[in-house]
Amino acid sequence: MREVAIIGVGMIDWGELWEKSLREIWAEAALAALDDAGVDRVDLITVGCMSPGLFVGQEHLASLLADEIGMAGVAATRTESACASGSLAFRAGFAEVAAGLADIVLVSGVEKMTDVDGADATFALGTAADQEYEGFHGITFPGLYAMMARVHMAHHGTTSRQLAAVAVKNHANGLLNPHAQYHLKLTVDDVLGSTLVADPLHLLDCSPITDGAAALVLAPLEKAKDIAGRRPVVKVTGSGLATDTIALANREDLARLRAVELAAERAYAMSGRQPRDIHVAEVHDCFTIAEIMTTEALGFFPPGEGGPAAERGLTALTGRIPVNPSGGLKSKGHPVGATGVAQIAEIVTQLRGEAGQRQVEGARVGLTQNMGGSGGSSTVHILEVA
Amino acid sequence: MREVAIIGVGMIDWGELWEKSLREIWAEAALAALDDAGVDRVDLITVGCMSPGLFVGQEHLASLLADEIGMAGVAATRTESACASGSLAFRAGFAEVAAGLADIVLVSGVEKMTDVDGADATFALGTAADQEYEGFHGITFPGLYAMMARVHMAHHGTTSRQLAAVAVKNHANGLLNPHAQYHLKLTVDDVLGSTLVADPLHLLDCSPITDGAAALVLAPLEKAKDIAGRRPVVKVTGSGLATDTIALANREDLARLRAVELAAERAYAMSGRQPRDIHVAEVHDCFTIAEIMTTEALGFFPPGEGGPAAERGLTALTGRIPVNPSGGLKSKGHPVGATGVAQIAEIVTQLRGEAGQRQVEGARVGLTQNMGGSGGSSTVHILEVA
Repeated sequence: MREVAIIGVGMIDWGELWEKSLREIWAEAALAALDDAGVDRVDLITVGCMSPGLFVGQEHLASLLADEIGMAGVAATRTESACASGSLAFRAGFAEVAAGLADIVLVSGVEKMTDVDGADATFALGTAADQEYEGFHGITFPGLYAMMARVHMAHHGTTSRQLAAVAVKNHANGLLNPHAQYHLKLTVDDVLGSTLVADPLHLLDCSPITDGAAALVLAPLEKAKDIAGRRPVVKVTGSGLATDTIALANREDLARLRAVELAAERAYAMSGRQPRDIHVAEVHDCFTIAEIMTTEALGFFPPGEGGPAAERGLTALTGRIPVNPSGGLKSKGHPVGATGVAQIAEIVTQLRGEAGQRQVEGARVGLTQNMGGSGGSSTVHILEVA
Repeated sequence: MREVAIIGVGMIDWGELWEKSLREIWAEAALAALDDAGVDRVDLITVGCMSPGLFVGQEHLASLLADEIGMAGVAATRTESACASGSLAFRAGFAEVAAGLADIVLVSGVEKMTDVDGADATFALGTAADQEYEGFHGITFPGLYAMMARVHMAHHGTTSRQLAAVAVKNHANGLLNPHAQYHLKLTVDDVLGSTLVADPLHLLDCSPITDGAAALVLAPLEKAKDIAGRRPVVKVTGSGLATDTIALANREDLARLRAVELAAERAYAMSGRQPRDIHVAEVHDCFTIAEIMTTEALGFFPPGEGGPAAERGLTALTGRIPVNPSGGLKSKGHPVGATGVAQIAEIVTQLRGEAGQRQVEGARVGLTQNMGGSGGSSTVHILEVA
């Protein structure tokens, strides 16, 4: 198996981009990544996108997008695993380069979510839950995560103030990220005073609906060293994928994210790393409770300690293990198919030492965790300065 | 790169399966493949499906399906490239085994298309075309392929009787396939006398709308030899992917399928094979004209000779290069995400010498060609007895 490096990242400003179409925002991110990498041809394009069918009435997405940037002819594929679609596009590209089937791969993620009305967006997102057993009863994602939060509170004493601390921290980080959808300075009281969406989750415990795209360029490590010049080369040392029951009703313990635990186990084993080796992480904070549960599942904190850790600032930019320096899904936004790719883009930027005001000092080993639905799927990737 | 073999195939009866859900038909095919392979655990599940969002209101499909057969926890991903989604699931599994990231992979394809009404199915399928530039003007797939047929006729003198010969041949083969959706003995006059859908394509020039699933099990070649016992082992020697402009208006020549030509070139180069080495092929006959154009793009016949070749019986079960012994999309049915996987299942069955009445004698090298939209993407795979 060949070693694989990331030689280019492309991010654009995320938000409600009503003046642009899906293909336009994708092309901006894709061209930015190719420019950053200094390459003008690729062997393969992978695209993570959750539901272009429901959001914009367009499938056959990878071919459409290859054509959009003048690359019709190239190999192209799309991956889907709900909100983990982006990191599965990364995995697909990683596997192709590792196998020697492709040398240069453009990995991308995109979602155009705000061109439909709120009810249609809620329906589209709801297709990440078990439609026949959960959606049928009318539940949507804030409700699913609220149930997980309730159980976590009951088992571990997690508080609403701890949940709010996650939002406050991620919005503070997002203020330092020019690409973030929301630049808001928040207090715990702001979060607790916002509308209750699904008890105990307030509006400011929830990530937003976003239009966005992100892209990366992969290459074999040996080739990457030639291309990179004096910039640090970032290599992929661990890649773990896992699933869980997608319906909450079938889980043994709603206070744990089993798919995250399994994906982490696989990624740590592959890389030879342990939780304490990680200098910076981007995790899937679709709701504040998700970040707390995820930092526990990744082994950063023991079960039940994720909430207190957030409240004590251990996950802040200058904390013991900085989590979501980009602002996370909470502040940066959550265009579902793009999120997993943008997480990796942030960690590469951190490991290159190019993160500006939000730079985590001395970061040489980073981790990303991306999740589908209410934890029905998860990926974990470990990246290191080569 | 490790060599990869196919150690199990699972097919079910295709048709209008109103009494079963998507997850049920998928599970039947998946369990049949695992049973055929003699394995009860896998490292990864890949699922090809075009649009479960639009057809059944369910995304996050690979996790849902892993859970359905009691495998929650396993790595799983879904691929999409419109009607080529299934063969991209195969490619994804192939890359994982080739890289050494997975040993045993369950590759699958599924589509549940008949639970929505005809207009909704037509809309969902239309999302494989360029929605903003083609769909916007109201065109659907019979119209797109009719334009290609018209140009092919004008350039090469291809006739409606030659198109009809493809339908007659594939339905004759389908009579020998117990899994096929339609068991019909047709004549050229039956085809020419059927309703004109989009001139020059008649109803019997078109593949149907189908519910169906298919599955395969992959393993490293060395392990496959241990597992197979006395059955022939089938290995993957070539895999080519390519795209073309998805909008017909952007193509230089509507009488050629550029994505098929490129995918074939890549698969032939990888395998060291040439068109004359192929003993049996499954190609993407979504419309009769597609089979004619595809047999030309694959190099089986020179440009313009695909029609006469079909009429002269060169692609019949006992012809020079038997094409679509399974009955093809025309007779077997076309559950879009499942088609690419079922094509490979058929070639494995042929190479194992287990195809019964439709067995192509002495077949040791086979090819599959799967296509998205009006040729906006294509894959070609070459399989051989190890």
